[in-house]
Amino acid sequence: MSEFEKAVTGLGEECGVFGAYDMDGHDVAASIYYGLFALQHRGQESCGIAVTDTAGKRKVLSRKGLGHVNDVFDEKVLSELKGNLGVGHVRYSTAGGTRVENAQPLVINYVKGTLAIAHNGNLVNAIELRKELEYTGAIFQTTIDSEVIAYHIARERLEAATAEEAVRLAMKKIKGAYALVVSSPRKMIGARDPFGLKPLCIGKRENTYFLASESCAIAAVDAEFVRDVLPGEIVTITKDGIASDMSMAMPAEKQARCIFEYIYFARTDSTIDGVNVYHSRIIAGKALAESYPVEADLVVGVPDSGLVAAKGYSEQSGIPYGMAFHKNSYVGRTFIKPKQSDRESSVKIKLNVIPEVVKGKRIVMVDDSIVRGTTCANIIKMLKKAGATEVHVRISSPPFLHPCYFGTDVPSNEQLIAHSHTPEQIRDMIGADSLGYMEIEKLKNMVGDLHFCDACFTGNYPMEVPGEDISQAFE
Amino acid sequence: MSEFEKAVTGLGEECGVFGAYDMDGHDVAASIYYGLFALQHRGQESCGIAVTDTAGKRKVLSRKGLGHVNDVFDEKVLSELKGNLGVGHVRYSTAGGTRVENAQPLVINYVKGTLAIAHNGNLVNAIELRKELEYTGAIFQTTIDSEVIAYHIARERLEAATAEEAVRLAMKKIKGAYALVVSSPRKMIGARDPFGLKPLCIGKRENTYFLASESCAIAAVDAEFVRDVLPGEIVTITKDGIASDMSMAMPAEKQARCIFEYIYFARTDSTIDGVNVYHSRIIAGKALAESYPVEADLVVGVPDSGLVAAKGYSEQSGIPYGMAFHKNSYVGRTFIKPKQSDRESSVKIKLNVIPEVVKGKRIVMVDDSIVRGTTCANIIKMLKKAGATEVHVRISSPPFLHPCYFGTDVPSNEQLIAHSHTPEQIRDMIGADSLGYMEIEKLKNMVGDLHFCDACFTGNYPMEVPGEDISQAFE
Amino acid sequence: MSEFEKAVTGLGEECGVFGAYDMDGHDVAASIYYGLFALQHRGQESCGIAVTDTAGKRKVLSRKGLGHVNDVFDEKVLSELKGNLGVGHVRYSTAGGTRVENAQPLVINYVKGTLAIAHNGNLVNAIELRKELEYTGAIFQTTIDSEVIAYHIARERLEAATAEEAVRLAMKKIKGAYALVVSSPRKMIGARDPFGLKPLCIGKRENTYFLASESCAIAAVDAEFVRDVLPGEIVTITKDGIASDMSMAMPAEKQARCIFEYIYFARTDSTIDGVNVYHSRIIAGKALAESYPVEADLVVGVPDSGLVAAKGYSEQSGIPYGMAFHKNSYVGRTFIKPKQSDRESSVKIKLNVIPEVVKGKRIVMVDDSIVRGTTCANIIKMLKKAGATEVHVRISSPPFLHPCYFGTDVPSNEQLIAHSHTPEQIRDMIGADSLGYMEIEKLKNMVGDLHFCDACFTGNYPMEVPGEDISQAFE
Amino acid sequence: MSEFEKAVTGLGEECGVFGAYDMDGHDVAASIYYGLFALQHRGQESCGIAVTDTAGKRKVLSRKGLGHVNDVFDEKVLSELKGNLGVGHVRYSTAGGTRVENAQPLVINYVKGTLAIAHNGNLVNAIELRKELEYTGAIFQTTIDSEVIAYHIARERLEAATAEEAVRLAMKKIKGAYALVVSSPRKMIGARDPFGLKPLCIGKRENTYFLASESCAIAAVDAEFVRDVLPGEIVTITKDGIASDMSMAMPAEKQARCIFEYIYFARTDSTIDGVNVYHSRIIAGKALAESYPVEADLVVGVPDSGLVAAKGYSEQSGIPYGMAFHKNSYVGRTFIKPKQSDRESSVKIKLNVIPEVVKGKRIVMVDDSIVRGTTCANIIKMLKKAGATEVHVRISSPPFLHPCYFGTDVPSNEQLIAHSHTPEQIRDMIGADSLGYMEIEKLKNMVGDLHFCDACFTGNYPMEVPGEDISQAFE
Repeated sequence: MSEFEKAVTGLGEECGVFGAYDMDGHDVAASIYYGLFALQHRGQESCGIAVTDTAGKRKVLSRKGLGHVNDVFDEKVLSELKGNLGVGHVRYSTAGGTRVENAQPLVINYVKGTLAIAHNGNLVNAIELRKELEYTGAIFQTTIDSEVIAYHIARERLEAATAEEAVRLAMKKIKGAYALVVSSPRKMIGARDPFGLKPLCIGKRENTYFLASESCAIAAVDAEFVRDVLPGEIVTITKDGIASDMSMAMPAEKQARCIFEYIYFARTDSTIDGVNVYHSRIIAGKALAESYPVEADLVVGVPDSGLVAAKGYSEQSGIPYGMAFHKNSYVGRTFIKPKQSDRESSVKIKLNVIPEVVKGKRIVMVDDSIVRGTTCANIIKMLKKAGATEVHVRISSPPFLHPCYFGTDVPSNEQLIAHSHTPEQIRDMIGADSLGYMEIEKLKNMVGDLHFCDACFTGNYPMEVPGEDISQAFE
Repeated sequence: MSEFEKAVTGLGEECGVFGAYDMDGHDVAASIYYGLFALQHRGQESCGIAVTDTAGKRKVLSRKGLGHVNDVFDEKVLSELKGNLGVGHVRYSTAGGTRVENAQPLVINYVKGTLAIAHNGNLVNAIELRKELEYTGAIFQTTIDSEVIAYHIARERLEAATAEEAVRLAMKKIKGAYALVVSSPRKMIGARDPFGLKPLCIGKRENTYFLASESCAIAAVDAEFVRDVLPGEIVTITKDGIASDMSMAMPAEKQARCIFEYIYFARTDSTIDGVNVYHSRIIAGKALAESYPVEADLVVGVPDSGLVAAKGYSEQSGIPYGMAFHKNSYVGRTFIKPKQSDRESSVKIKLNVIPEVVKGKRIVMVDDSIVRGTTCANIIKMLKKAGATEVHVRISSPPFLHPCYFGTDVPSNEQLIAHSHTPEQIRDMIGADSLGYMEIEKLKNMVGDLHFCDACFTGNYPMEVPGEDISQAFE
Repeated sequence: MSEFEKAVTGLGEECGVFGAYDMDGHDVAASIYYGLFALQHRGQESCGIAVTDTAGKRKVLSRKGLGHVNDVFDEKVLSELKGNLGVGHVRYSTAGGTRVENAQPLVINYVKGTLAIAHNGNLVNAIELRKELEYTGAIFQTTIDSEVIAYHIARERLEAATAEEAVRLAMKKIKGAYALVVSSPRKMIGARDPFGLKPLCIGKRENTYFLASESCAIAAVDAEFVRDVLPGEIVTITKDGIASDMSMAMPAEKQARCIFEYIYFARTDSTIDGVNVYHSRIIAGKALAESYPVEADLVVGVPDSGLVAAKGYSEQSGIPYGMAFHKNSYVGRTFIKPKQSDRESSVKIKLNVIPEVVKGKRIVMVDDSIVRGTTCANIIKMLKKAGATEVHVRISSPPFLHPCYFGTDVPSNEQLIAHSHTPEQIRDMIGADSLGYMEIEKLKNMVGDLHFCDACFTGNYPMEVPGEDISQAFE
Repeated sequence: MSEFEKAVTGLGEECGVFGAYDMDGHDVAASIYYGLFALQHRGQESCGIAVTDTAGKRKVLSRKGLGHVNDVFDEKVLSELKGNLGVGHVRYSTAGGTRVENAQPLVINYVKGTLAIAHNGNLVNAIELRKELEYTGAIFQTTIDSEVIAYHIARERLEAATAEEAVRLAMKKIKGAYALVVSSPRKMIGARDPFGLKPLCIGKRENTYFLASESCAIAAVDAEFVRDVLPGEIVTITKDGIASDMSMAMPAEKQARCIFEYIYFARTDSTIDGVNVYHSRIIAGKALAESYPVEADLVVGVPDSGLVAAKGYSEQSGIPYGMAFHKNSYVGRTFIKPKQSDRESSVKIKLNVIPEVVKGKRIVMVDDSIVRGTTCANIIKMLKKAGATEVHVRISSPPFLHPCYFGTDVPSNEQLIAHSHTPEQIRDMIGADSLGYMEIEKLKNMVGDLHFCDACFTGNYPMEVPGEDISQAFE
């Protein structure tokens, strides 16, 4: 799937989270803004920042809105968000459910004061837990799992001695994928589900601590990367430094990091659990070159997500790497497609082939996935029209065959070309001269010793999952 | 207080509510829009509409936003709010707390499905109830009392046989002022606190029922006024018509309607509990003329809220009624006041004297209240500059001396000129030739036999109230 | 015509102009903003401000936009408009031609530097002059007459010794209605057509001079009214004070002020050519009472423009004056009317009857004009539904029968009910019990000794006019 | 200069132009929208579209606004722009002069009706021509040269038999750089200055003809590239096809195409005058490798404009090509930089180094230019911090030493680091281990036989130019 297909097909990540705590008392809203800006690729529907002043009234000030970080925040808004501890969130745009009520962070008042929560991931027992809570009189104002998590933290906090203990007790109840950043009046708490499905890491800049979905956001605020939060770990950051609670952790072999972070979601300049994303994509490209060698003149990647794997293919195969496409930098959220002009395809508007590069050449074209196949077919057509004599497609992930219950928004089966067609059929449908998908057994090359989740390819879920699609349950 | 003072001083009503239920299944969003538009004077901060389709999935669709009804809704938005049962709300702009999270209606998911609640008024035991709820693990996402009410309805619903029964049980717990409109999947429920502090009435147009804070909104949708919801009454509107539950009602002599609805809040074309607002203001003006007669040439009202009482003063005194002011129709929410021009006062921009009318005349100037006194002083100065030889000020309400706990946003004592000054002192401070406030004992003339609350003038609260100011408790 | 009819029918004034020149060098943009705000009733389509710094580079900075003064300007924009001499403009919204290119002031570079021009009025020989100019190679970028005027000033300036002389020479060519405010690098020039069709006056505040369409704008900036610019006069305001050139003036008996300024356009707090608008409307009301006496219980005016004449009718007839209507203060530019709700009429949304006032009464209802008659009919219907037993309509202007070529946007004949129906027919169509239009011969009572234009009623144009409708000539 | 430096330093192209003429009468606004979208890189300040219906009233409908194509146009606006002949324009954002009045196309009424003009380039005799025109009474409403051109066309049209003849006669007067697209009521005219400084080409799709600044825009509307308009050529497109007038053309050796189109401005997928931009940048990179060989491990380009030249350097030198940077896709027009956070540099926000790629490596970093040097210094610092052991900078253009009078917005001398420093000094200032600028004599390799302008590097202007900076003359 090229990123151009993404807008159409709805495959995407749920969120990015970011937290900042300045022990010297300076405002952190601007740093959170920069952090979220670096995580914008993880969600473009809505965003928010909530801050608190640990030395003052510990009231939470927040601002949320629909749109990009740039749309929702400006200097005036940021300057009003006074506070030295805060959390931020960017949310992925799922079709239809665009509601400002679902924007995060969730800011709640509860028995111990105020809490702000930013959450990335999906729970598999959210419906069950909501029902349970409703049967004790709970009300829900959003359709996001984060509200279920907030409720559990609040309930556990009645007994728990500390906020982090309440988080731990809540983690015993909730099942699924989550990376959490919580601001309690004078603490910043980070937590990651025991499987490690979603990433979370720690950064530091002088006396300011950061938590972020990806290390690129740590770099964006000019901080040093400290380490990843471990699967199942709860970190509590206070004036006294970082405290770690590993009691919810599981043995490494049960861990199940989302492999799609490496294939597609994360930025190439991020390193997650010790594995650099750029590096893992190079490996993927090399694996494709080993599995599906071909005589060709040029290897090209579909911008932006296919570029690095194409580089890997080139390195392994010895076939030169080329830039076949110009991508329009101005394609953004508000791009419209007037109806009257059927001749101008969406792909063409965003991407154009450089004929000079491809004319008369046999091309290896690398992309990260194929969802419906139409975009891929369009691009191949453009390449051939520009003079490419052959187009060999290499996909740096195996075919999608199973739904994801952990927050990756995979389209329903009918939309997935791989669900009802063999690779040979797909090759013919998209007009490629050959087609090779990443072999499942080679995925592990990408991430070294890390244990990962490949359920969307294999159906081997790391935990029990609901039998049906739950994505629209509360809409 | 002239309305021009209002923006500065923050005296104001909390909200307006509106509900519509079309038994024939037609969409009601447009009617709710018109109803809210007629109630816009009750709140300009934010507004919202939530609708449900009683024949379909009974999912609630909602839209809320900061700003006027005209800002938040357009044809496209309204056409997307498909449903034949809905509630709407306009919210008053309190200084500082402008948060979209506090916009209503509140839409909740709870054990029996979905509920939308619109609420006007303030509870006096909200803090207490929130604490209680928090001690059972509840979380709060807003700072509005409506969330407390929603929680209680949801909790009671666990046992209650019906939604209206849950409302009734919740009413046993909540204390204070409220007019509620609730849409349960196939019912529209209206409720008014036993004291009747806030108004609510019923309208009907063919097979569509309406609930509204004021009868002017019933007229705006071309419906017939049916009757007021009675203090303490719960009405449940279904396909079978209107059912009434009076079990929460109190004896008439304990009722305590907010007298300020008649003095200032409500529109002159509304009739509340059988008393027409225009009429009650005429009576107020007449009472002022009886209490404070003066030799003068012209009676003028400060637009818009002082106009009718001025008419009453004129009728009683026989002194001609005149129009001394031109009010700029274009003063709106976004009016800015550039700093560099100190010479142009805010009052002057909104209001100009017609010298032709006042020159050489002794003027009786009627307004509804004095808060800080600065606006009044400015207007008197303008009148005198235009040639008025005397300005006698008559105020159609007694001096504010006590805080309101029921939803009227009276400024703190330091800002209230009447709190620290005698009428004589105030007269001198504003530059009037004489000053007369409505006598407390004559207030009752305004509303006939109705029992009303005059606590802001007398300190005689109809129920136990907190000892301190609670308005900022959750901000 | 009530103002509610205005939006529908398109009758309206073309513009308001304002100029300010601070001899002490302070910025004037904020004052111009306030002045335009007071003139907003003269035009709501677009507005603009252009300023220059007479001590500096004399470059003109400007900002124009579609919408109200409040929409186009904020503190930031005003603070960027640095300069102590400037002109401003508000433009009336004519149907269809909403183009930002037509916003004024027109800022031009020409042989002597830079000039900004704000113009109110229409030329009758604009087409002719444009053609002439085009035949010498001129290009036009707007469809406004002001561009024609600017061209002539620029051409005359080639020979003329001064800017004001160029204005004078241009005035010899242009024919029609105009009030002009021009900022030349170190001069502010005001000019009024020899007939005096459009108003213009002078104000002063310390060392700052002002020019304005109406005196209400002089009051809005806290300045003193100095005098009206006379018909045909050119005033040149410099450091040396006000210089006057009366060489273009005509004998008083040929002057032809637009009577509609007094009837409808101008604010009641303005005084034009020595006649107060409020006063002239009182006179109009009195004249109606003399011409069309009736036995009735109450005189009411249709807000806002009918109110004063109603007062006059009441004073003359002795029938009490009453307030029968509540006008919604929140009706603004962006009001939408969702299609699905035919029951809620536009009139009802803006205006509601106070039944208490009219029930059982015989009503005299005064309005300033009838255009299509539908709004009037709706209001009468509302009054009767509210219990009025009779409704006698009195219109403070004679019937419109002839097009205006001077800037008043009268609808085409087919839309004018008076064009094809007798008063008796109209009375029946609108459902009134009687109907009386102002008698043409009594119009003069309104303005004392002033000579005025009543061509829209009589067809007696003060100058030769084109035979056909020219309003759409350049659209 | 990396593109990140561009926003700061103000180096940039003036405009992009696009025209469309559908002989079958279908609306062309949507196609123009797509074409402008593909040319967005040539100007982001403002844009506009003007269309006319050749079969109807031949009235011109237009829409212009500040901002990107996506901001100014939506489906509604496009659908209102009915017409089968139209021109569009995108304008570059020069510091300070952001005025909607300067947006193009310029739509004029003149002796023969209506004309719309879109213009890319700068005239060198604009001041002179304006003065001349002003001395005959002309007025100017913008500060753009296009208005001078429009005037000349209008004046010549008085005598000229056709619009294209008027264009030809105007071309005899105007001197400088221009690519013009003009829509006359039933013709689309394209013209290019005799030096060919600015590009223009022709495309065709069925019965629709297109004119565009770059061939990428022809591709964007799915049309076939027909040919370039030749330097000095006037093409007139009517129902009868394309007519060519070469009478203004000069001998090839006097032609002077802007070399910066190939180095930086144009998109890599465009081909201008037969030379593909991608190809010319590859050649530039190869030339750098020949001129400045170095022992290194990796060649990297600064996104996006340095990438292709880096590829060329890699191919020539045999040093592997690598992707060292992640560029944030969400950096857009509205990006804000809150003041309080000095630690987060602008560069870092937009660009991050992938440490994995550069660690321990000797890097050759290729960019297209250096303006002030600060951005370059920042990027080198980031590379070294990420572990690069050496950074050798190669710039694919010679140092800027002379102002451009033809529309390229080169900063003033004080801001140009090359103006006052030797390459050695610059190398030290930016912290590079070596620095090599493209040799002037090798520029010609980039464009084959084409004659080009390199005045900004050499001072050899193709025509007489004013002695001083004229860029602010009319601001």
